[in-house]
Amino acid sequence: MTTSPHEHPAAGFDDAVHQPNRLGIMVILHEAGRADFGYLKAALSLTDGNLGRHLNALEDGGLVKLSKGFEGRRPRTWAQLTPAGRRALRAELDAMRRLLARLDTPD
Amino acid sequence: MTTSPHEHPAAGFDDAVHQPNRLGIMVILHEAGRADFGYLKAALSLTDGNLGRHLNALEDGGLVKLSKGFEGRRPRTWAQLTPAGRRALRAELDAMRRLLARLDTPD
Repeated sequence: MTTSPHEHPAAGFDDAVHQPNRLGIMVILHEAGRADFGYLKAALSLTDGNLGRHLNALEDGGLVKLSKGFEGRRPRTWAQLTPAGRRALRAELDAMRRLLARLDTPD
Repeated sequence: MTTSPHEHPAAGFDDAVHQPNRLGIMVILHEAGRADFGYLKAALSLTDGNLGRHLNALEDGGLVKLSKGFEGRRPRTWAQLTPAGRRALRAELDAMRRLLARLDTPD
């Protein structure tokens, strides 16, 4: 982890994770272990279409694993972080910490 | 500033500021007071077109003020944060701090 003053001050932010709703999804999955579509939709105030697009993008990037199942007769889609997703979330949070540390440190 | 557990875990991130290169621009302007186009371009490893688009978007949003001048015969474009830009950067950093605090606090 470099803290060079010449480093890009927003270095380490990854567009795949950085978008606020995707970050929200990943934080919830990190906290909850896994969550279903309806829960994420309500927690993040997203439409079906919007949440679906974000989940597909995260799945395509290998950051989230989706699995479909039933609860009684109701179909449900569960999401959980992959190991790569956990690493990407950690990297994003580290980038935030580095940026905040840079700004809190007088030079 | 709410820290409700029901708050969206990425609440407070503002798309106008949140994009990594825009955030990088604003952090540099916050640190430097003002910076010229060439400096920002080098610091953020951006093309003319890309930096120009980000600066125009920030100017359109009232977050950055651009001013043109000359140094000798060389035309230069200077950028600095507006008061709204300083507030938006502070809100973005506060959103990062809240998210990190949420994750660091066992419930």
